[in-house]
Amino acid sequence: MKKNIQAVEKQFLQYVKKMMAYKEAISLMYWDLRTGAPRKGVDQRSEVIGMLSQDVFHMSTSEQMAAYIAELSAKSVQEQLSPVTRYTLVECQKEYERNKKIPADEYKQYVILQSKAESVWEEAKAKSDFSLFEPYLKQLVDFTKRFITYWGTNGHPYNTLLDLYEPGVTVDLLDDVFSKLRNRIVPLVQQISESRHKPETSFLFQPFPKEKQRAFSLALLKELGYDFDAGRLDETTHPFAITLNEGDVRITTKYDENDFRTAIFGTIHECGHALYEQNISKEWAGTPLYDGTSMGIHESQSLFYENFIARHYSFWKRYYSLLQQYAPHFVDVSLDDFYRAINESKPSLIRIEADELTYPLHIIIRYEMEKALFDGAIEVRDLPHIWNEKYEAYLGVRPERDAEGILQDVHWAGGSFGYFPSYALGYMYAAQFKYAMEKQLLDFDKLIENGEFVHIREWLTKHIHQYGKTKKPLDILHEVTGEGLNPTYLIRYLEEKYKHIYRL
Amino acid sequence: MKKNIQAVEKQFLQYVKKMMAYKEAISLMYWDLRTGAPRKGVDQRSEVIGMLSQDVFHMSTSEQMAAYIAELSAKSVQEQLSPVTRYTLVECQKEYERNKKIPADEYKQYVILQSKAESVWEEAKAKSDFSLFEPYLKQLVDFTKRFITYWGTNGHPYNTLLDLYEPGVTVDLLDDVFSKLRNRIVPLVQQISESRHKPETSFLFQPFPKEKQRAFSLALLKELGYDFDAGRLDETTHPFAITLNEGDVRITTKYDENDFRTAIFGTIHECGHALYEQNISKEWAGTPLYDGTSMGIHESQSLFYENFIARHYSFWKRYYSLLQQYAPHFVDVSLDDFYRAINESKPSLIRIEADELTYPLHIIIRYEMEKALFDGAIEVRDLPHIWNEKYEAYLGVRPERDAEGILQDVHWAGGSFGYFPSYALGYMYAAQFKYAMEKQLLDFDKLIENGEFVHIREWLTKHIHQYGKTKKPLDILHEVTGEGLNPTYLIRYLEEKYKHIYRL
Repeated sequence: MKKNIQAVEKQFLQYVKKMMAYKEAISLMYWDLRTGAPRKGVDQRSEVIGMLSQDVFHMSTSEQMAAYIAELSAKSVQEQLSPVTRYTLVECQKEYERNKKIPADEYKQYVILQSKAESVWEEAKAKSDFSLFEPYLKQLVDFTKRFITYWGTNGHPYNTLLDLYEPGVTVDLLDDVFSKLRNRIVPLVQQISESRHKPETSFLFQPFPKEKQRAFSLALLKELGYDFDAGRLDETTHPFAITLNEGDVRITTKYDENDFRTAIFGTIHECGHALYEQNISKEWAGTPLYDGTSMGIHESQSLFYENFIARHYSFWKRYYSLLQQYAPHFVDVSLDDFYRAINESKPSLIRIEADELTYPLHIIIRYEMEKALFDGAIEVRDLPHIWNEKYEAYLGVRPERDAEGILQDVHWAGGSFGYFPSYALGYMYAAQFKYAMEKQLLDFDKLIENGEFVHIREWLTKHIHQYGKTKKPLDILHEVTGEGLNPTYLIRYLEEKYKHIYRL
Repeated sequence: MKKNIQAVEKQFLQYVKKMMAYKEAISLMYWDLRTGAPRKGVDQRSEVIGMLSQDVFHMSTSEQMAAYIAELSAKSVQEQLSPVTRYTLVECQKEYERNKKIPADEYKQYVILQSKAESVWEEAKAKSDFSLFEPYLKQLVDFTKRFITYWGTNGHPYNTLLDLYEPGVTVDLLDDVFSKLRNRIVPLVQQISESRHKPETSFLFQPFPKEKQRAFSLALLKELGYDFDAGRLDETTHPFAITLNEGDVRITTKYDENDFRTAIFGTIHECGHALYEQNISKEWAGTPLYDGTSMGIHESQSLFYENFIARHYSFWKRYYSLLQQYAPHFVDVSLDDFYRAINESKPSLIRIEADELTYPLHIIIRYEMEKALFDGAIEVRDLPHIWNEKYEAYLGVRPERDAEGILQDVHWAGGSFGYFPSYALGYMYAAQFKYAMEKQLLDFDKLIENGEFVHIREWLTKHIHQYGKTKKPLDILHEVTGEGLNPTYLIRYLEEKYKHIYRL
């Protein structure tokens, strides 16, 4: 009997390895499309991605997969399985059920709608006209509402969507932490806008050639411990990090010759994502476990590096003279002035251009609207008005055009509802991790000032990275910090930092 | 009845499209491995390539494929098929038979041997010791001899191998043309080595930064009509051109900062390959017909651009001043001196470093040895000695170490026998095409001098490129030139050019 199960286990892992092989090929094609694939090959390449994605989908919902799940999840055999098999089985089962519960025909229609909606959204954004996009968005919401009923609900219907990106997180939890965050950030933003001690920033926008920015970025990546034998840095339009396999975790960035912050902070953000995946235990390689455990935990790592390290005074104490070598126009700017400038906070309309203080408000607005959409409190047609009201109330700015308001993000056009909260969750997790780290590692600021990132990286690997997808986000949070989600640490970080910078 | 066949035809083309999709993914992974994939991801990436290659192999030999072939090649239905289907069927059938005739177990052993042999060859080359490689080479030859018996012979056993790369070309034909070539080139090489009018070349080896070489290469590629919307240029160790799909035909090159000829002539060589595949009729896209018809015809296009265009006096008459902008150290060198320098001819030991005059002799040596190996005239253990004798006889140089003699090329380690002749065949084809072109296009030299490459490109597209794999190499040759393989044109080209350069 034992022998039989081991044979099945081996076949199952081989089957999963095949799915992962297809996924690796798909990921490379995706990376290639976004880093320089020639224009005329794009349509055919997209078709190939479609065909291989279909292969993966079929394998994930096949009778063979059903048989593996049935055979290996029997209680009598569970104990005989290796940890890899056990965890992998859980992930495969989750995917199987999620994919099987939607009627095939309906899912096909949904996929077609998705791709149409994305192009309509592009057009609507270009014309700044929400009414073009509205009927598509309505259909996407309707489809998603039906999917929620297929998948089943647990309390609020939006919980089912949250579970896709952040298992364990609920509306009740988010309402609580987001309102705390909002109640403290909104007045702080207000105070800052009234402060007379605003940083001078004009020197940030001096020309800084792309090649020099790239060289500086590469130097910083090496310092932070990004492994170039298991990755590379390329240029793209919308930066991302992507894992092809356990030895190949790539990052991409974008260069703005008149604002170097885009590339430098963007690269370090993606580096945070990449360090997570470069440091997952190789034990999980070749399975879906070799992945970040959730969108929020992933974002916690990128924000940790971007904000807590690269926007830290100690970081620039160490690297400002290096920057000056690549960008001599900073030679006449003092370190203090530079530090204040890169940490300028100013309410703005566009999420992806927001600073670290106002950023969570952009997320909270989207969360409140998504939640209300899915519990029926509001309708799609109400969105632009509500959006504008909330921006005025929370940030004190009001979009004049749909393009810089309701139409700015692609997420909804792709049917991604429930994704946005991860950005703010990640930020709160990161602040909690930082607090826990500071209790264990002596003098966090000094480590940064001395460039001893290895200790920080090893701490994150030991407590978070190594586990890949084998631990759930809230379990990691609890094990690392001894408590649940708690916005206090982020609030404290933001208040201390910004009161200091703006002399409040 | 008709309707049925059309349904089968559609399914068959869909099936082939799927195979082509896997091949596209494989090609991208191959390109990526050779243009900068990080070291630690290579093993896993190779496994993925292996898995997808197996998918393609299975599809090419499946019962489904057998059924398509049986159904669609019946005489009664052939007339109802579209040209795409008919030609595709021929290619699929050829591949099916080739793959099916070798017993599966034997083929598996062969694949294992191949990969072992390549690493042993690398070691043997590093140690310059043929005896390490000899037993593996012997096994590869023995396997290949058995494959020849499975595939069937037509006259000389080596014909079966030639057919893999250059359908229609036989030992009888090659013996004839290669002896003519050899008889004229050997004395010319001898005369040159005795000439007192040798070009000065030292100025070629001045430092020329990589970035400048790249910029100059890109400028030339644009001039030649390489379509950057359907391709890109990257850096690699062993340059190649690769087609991912009909809108994505990439080239790669290598930069030597102390010898710019490597990058410039190498890039233009690969550009010739790429122009072929960029200009195949889109009618054949998504099938195996979207490919060069043979190795020889492919090489004819790369050599046409590399030698007949880029080593032509008129080319540099036009572009020498541009080169001087990128490489100011040429400002003091006259155009005539430059032209003679880049066309220096000197017998050497290494094929891939050979000039355009001595190159065919390197190929003829390999051909004579392969032919003798497969008709049993010589044994693997005799190779190093025979190699050295032939180099001394034809080129007047004798290798002192196996690494610079018998072990220099990877081809045999990969089991590629019958491939080498394509290089020299391509050269002869190219000279014949040039002669035919010159009769139809007024003043070839002037076209080059004026940079009017579009006429040359259109001529090649009309007569060669557009057909892809739908016409056989010797049929193309005959239709374009009105005759069969004829070494006269290449001999005439080489004699005229080199007698002029060396004032013989």
